Amino acid sequence: MNITSPDIQIHLPVGSPALACVDIGGTKVAVSMADHRGISGKVSEPTAKEGANDALGQQIIRLIGQSCALAGIQLSSVESVGVSSCGPFLLNEGLVELAAPNICGGMAGKARGLPNDWMSALLEAPLRAAFKNVRVENDGVGALEAERRWGALQGMRNCAYVTWSTGIGMGACVDGHILRGKNGNAGHLGHTFVVENNEALCGCGLIGDVESLVAGNAIPRRFDSEGYADASALFSAARSGDARAIAIIDTLCNVMGRALFNVTALFDLQRISLGGSVFWHNQDYLLPRLQAFMQGKLPALTNGLEIVPAGLGERVGDYAALALVMR
Amino acid sequence: MNITSPDIQIHLPVGSPALACVDIGGTKVAVSMADHRGISGKVSEPTAKEGANDALGQQIIRLIGQSCALAGIQLSSVESVGVSSCGPFLLNEGLVELAAPNICGGMAGKARGLPNDWMSALLEAPLRAAFKNVRVENDGVGALEAERRWGALQGMRNCAYVTWSTGIGMGACVDGHILRGKNGNAGHLGHTFVVENNEALCGCGLIGDVESLVAGNAIPRRFDSEGYADASALFSAARSGDARAIAIIDTLCNVMGRALFNVTALFDLQRISLGGSVFWHNQDYLLPRLQAFMQGKLPALTNGLEIVPAGLGERVGDYAALALVMR
Repeated sequence: MNITSPDIQIHLPVGSPALACVDIGGTKVAVSMADHRGISGKVSEPTAKEGANDALGQQIIRLIGQSCALAGIQLSSVESVGVSSCGPFLLNEGLVELAAPNICGGMAGKARGLPNDWMSALLEAPLRAAFKNVRVENDGVGALEAERRWGALQGMRNCAYVTWSTGIGMGACVDGHILRGKNGNAGHLGHTFVVENNEALCGCGLIGDVESLVAGNAIPRRFDSEGYADASALFSAARSGDARAIAIIDTLCNVMGRALFNVTALFDLQRISLGGSVFWHNQDYLLPRLQAFMQGKLPALTNGLEIVPAGLGERVGDYAALALVMR
Repeated sequence: MNITSPDIQIHLPVGSPALACVDIGGTKVAVSMADHRGISGKVSEPTAKEGANDALGQQIIRLIGQSCALAGIQLSSVESVGVSSCGPFLLNEGLVELAAPNICGGMAGKARGLPNDWMSALLEAPLRAAFKNVRVENDGVGALEAERRWGALQGMRNCAYVTWSTGIGMGACVDGHILRGKNGNAGHLGHTFVVENNEALCGCGLIGDVESLVAGNAIPRRFDSEGYADASALFSAARSGDARAIAIIDTLCNVMGRALFNVTALFDLQRISLGGSVFWHNQDYLLPRLQAFMQGKLPALTNGLEIVPAGLGERVGDYAALALVMR
């Protein structure tokens, strides 16, 4: 299915200082600027993984300079930086560092072939040395704030945004409070166990967690040998009536349904908004199945819960960093 | 094992007005009074299940009167009532009602043989009509507040109390905020799915949730036919080297370990305190196995997490209602 995302344009009020929006993933870092004209000056590079362990922080500072130049904005006028980042995080004297096994070579020895021996990558400290206001959150929290502000979770005090994409992530809000936890790592729904499986290896080292079973990157790993090279191939086959593809997707929906039910039982939510490429392009197929999984299960918890597509569609990630710092 | 609970005595300051402490379960309601002398005047009755649907609320008001008489306290001096109750809850115009399938006959038709057709039992409304300050929370939240105040969770901003008893319950605190959710039902860890099981029926109607597999009331249901009539028999057998009992407990610890790991991944906690009769009397056997389950799993989340026995031991429940209203 080719489902387009809503065309939502966000502008700062005329006269507001420009904001820097930083999106950190395991493979690339993207930076853009927001001002009264909207979002512009997008630049991106492969995530820095060589040199001292502030290399990523220095890369971001450099990219903010480039993004400003591209957008025609004075670097000196930039006071606030919002950073929406992959995790997990580590708090060191209150400042966020990344402890991501696909960035930090020191975490798993040299086994992953990373060109560094970092135990963590400095992030908030170098940015705070260069800018006045810095807010770093995991990308689940960034996306949640964007959905609460401009998307499908507006006005909701008990809600979550769940991404079903290359990986599985979440940001959750309970009683109007956005959950962070001791190191800012609350919401790692992809790394929870909902069924027993002793074969599927996750990038995080766990075996059989939700992400290892249903994420976009798990589909080729698990089903390529059966002729489904990726999520797109799997869903195309199911739509043409391929019984095996339909059965596989049913097992994926069982896993994701259980994960969403667990979130409901633990957080007592009003609404869950779903995004991410796997979900978004197959929402017509997946949404009714996930809703059916919930139906009738422990009504005191599931009554009054809605499961809806992300209001910002595939653009949730684009607005995540902005939502963290825009007033 | 006969492990005694810590002897913690809680007294209100001399001159403080007495507080009423109410503990509601599916089978009985207990009321006691707290003042400068400690806790006294405990009375209890089977939970009211006949008549109009404010019967439970009226029963509690009557029991508070009886408890005052027994404790030698003037009923008119009681301003505050703390209620720690089984769930699930329903909020009706902001006031808590009980929607518990083992109390409200209307929820499952007459199938459960309950002598009423209530869809919910009024609770907060009748109490508020009789007393100035009323605070109703689910018993997981009450226990959590008691552990944070007097037990093993003092000073913790990211923590949970989990009870492994007749049922499985939890109260959780993230970033210093105690989670409630849209109807005050956050924390239903017993009703989450962590392995696949299509046989074990939970009291809530779910099949294969955590409570259906490991709770005190699940053990006879699942293993009586193998000669283990209850948790005590099962653990005694395991301690005498019975290989089958040991294997069964290993599967219980796998389920509970996964549940605790999921909580850690979703809430990013510093400490989980464990109580409840199944855990408390077998903590020497269970605690090392649960800790071992966590060991090495996704270190960014499990490093810095402690799993400890409840500081209030088996008395957590006694202090839950008090913790809700004592300044």
